[in-house]
Amino acid sequence: MSRKVEVCLSPRLVDRFDISNRIVVVTDVLRATSAMVAGLANGVTAIRPVETVEASAELRAQGYLAAAEREGQVVAGFDFGNSPYAFMKPEVNGQKIALTTTNGTRAIALVAAAPLVLIGAFVNLGAILNFLAHRNEDVLVLCSGWKDNFNLEDSLFAGAIVAGLRGPEVSNCDAGVATALLYEQLKGDLFGAIQQSSHYQRLAKMGIEEDIRFCMQRDVFSVVPMLRAGEIVL
Amino acid sequence: MSRKVEVCLSPRLVDRFDISNRIVVVTDVLRATSAMVAGLANGVTAIRPVETVEASAELRAQGYLAAAEREGQVVAGFDFGNSPYAFMKPEVNGQKIALTTTNGTRAIALVAAAPLVLIGAFVNLGAILNFLAHRNEDVLVLCSGWKDNFNLEDSLFAGAIVAGLRGPEVSNCDAGVATALLYEQLKGDLFGAIQQSSHYQRLAKMGIEEDIRFCMQRDVFSVVPMLRAGEIVL
Repeated sequence: MSRKVEVCLSPRLVDRFDISNRIVVVTDVLRATSAMVAGLANGVTAIRPVETVEASAELRAQGYLAAAEREGQVVAGFDFGNSPYAFMKPEVNGQKIALTTTNGTRAIALVAAAPLVLIGAFVNLGAILNFLAHRNEDVLVLCSGWKDNFNLEDSLFAGAIVAGLRGPEVSNCDAGVATALLYEQLKGDLFGAIQQSSHYQRLAKMGIEEDIRFCMQRDVFSVVPMLRAGEIVL
Repeated sequence: MSRKVEVCLSPRLVDRFDISNRIVVVTDVLRATSAMVAGLANGVTAIRPVETVEASAELRAQGYLAAAEREGQVVAGFDFGNSPYAFMKPEVNGQKIALTTTNGTRAIALVAAAPLVLIGAFVNLGAILNFLAHRNEDVLVLCSGWKDNFNLEDSLFAGAIVAGLRGPEVSNCDAGVATALLYEQLKGDLFGAIQQSSHYQRLAKMGIEEDIRFCMQRDVFSVVPMLRAGEIVL
């Protein structure tokens, strides 16, 4: 029996999908889920995604490091935002981090009721594919997008998942077909492809091209972070 | 100065775009906008898009032919649904038609406040491109989708518009970049491409493959229908 591999291109459309019986892979390639993967692979013990800046700050009292990003910038008063490099510094080793971001942490909250939520990005693409290949459940990839709109980098990641799982599975989902075709077309130069994107242009102006270059690399880490009791852990 | 050419992949996302100062091209390739173009090119004098089956039926009293489609089928009690062939029959010549469909007529209602709304499909692609090439206004292509979700055929049409207008214009819209790349990849065999789509599979089961083949043809008609005072006319 073939399984469904579907793609939701915007958090705004997630109610069009039944998440009660499938594995949901949430992605926010630039940069929230890339940073989460990098952090957990480098000794961060847990990441608590929260929806507001205030919620992140309040968790300091419970021993979390507090991180917050809005509009691509570190929010004033916070030690770091969602740069993956910040999540790999020696001082975060062994720590828990509370994190709120413009798009990614909100997307995670929307699917928290799914039986299994995985955190995916190009930096752990192979690990996610390997994990999914060993399960026969239906899969939904949720793109965090940019303020509810479609974005290129998350869609390319979704396409990489669909393309990577294809075989006996049939997507039967137009967004899955389209993103897989797009990924096959652009996979030879992901960083080049993303330079056409609106998000690249926004972020490059802020001088964080190094972050983008990092996030467009495949298979840097072999971890598969998942949501457990409100925290992202390995 | 370059103009914006943006793509909205689902009616649910249309509030992410400013429609107050741009030309909006609404598309529902399978089959509402293809049928509208076909009808107006073949002597239908006006098409009134309405949101409910009841509204379509009530317009009979005002001299309209009443058409209604739901879930790909002609609604019981109506003479026709949204098959383009029905809109080209001799008996519709010189007539006005009231039409409600699952996706397309709703999408038109969402952007009725824009200064200019055009009705586009592959069957009048060249005419739409030619019209837009002679205006320097910003453009939004609104894909009707399928029940608010992304679909392949409308996205390919949007990509054809972006690809066709490119030159001095910059899309700066990820959906525009993605759909244009997809169109460039698939334009050699649009009917073959669409056979991968969920909508094709839904409609083919109903025996309307001929309709789909018709709708995936480019430049059958040279008309540019537009919305004027609640009616679509030439």
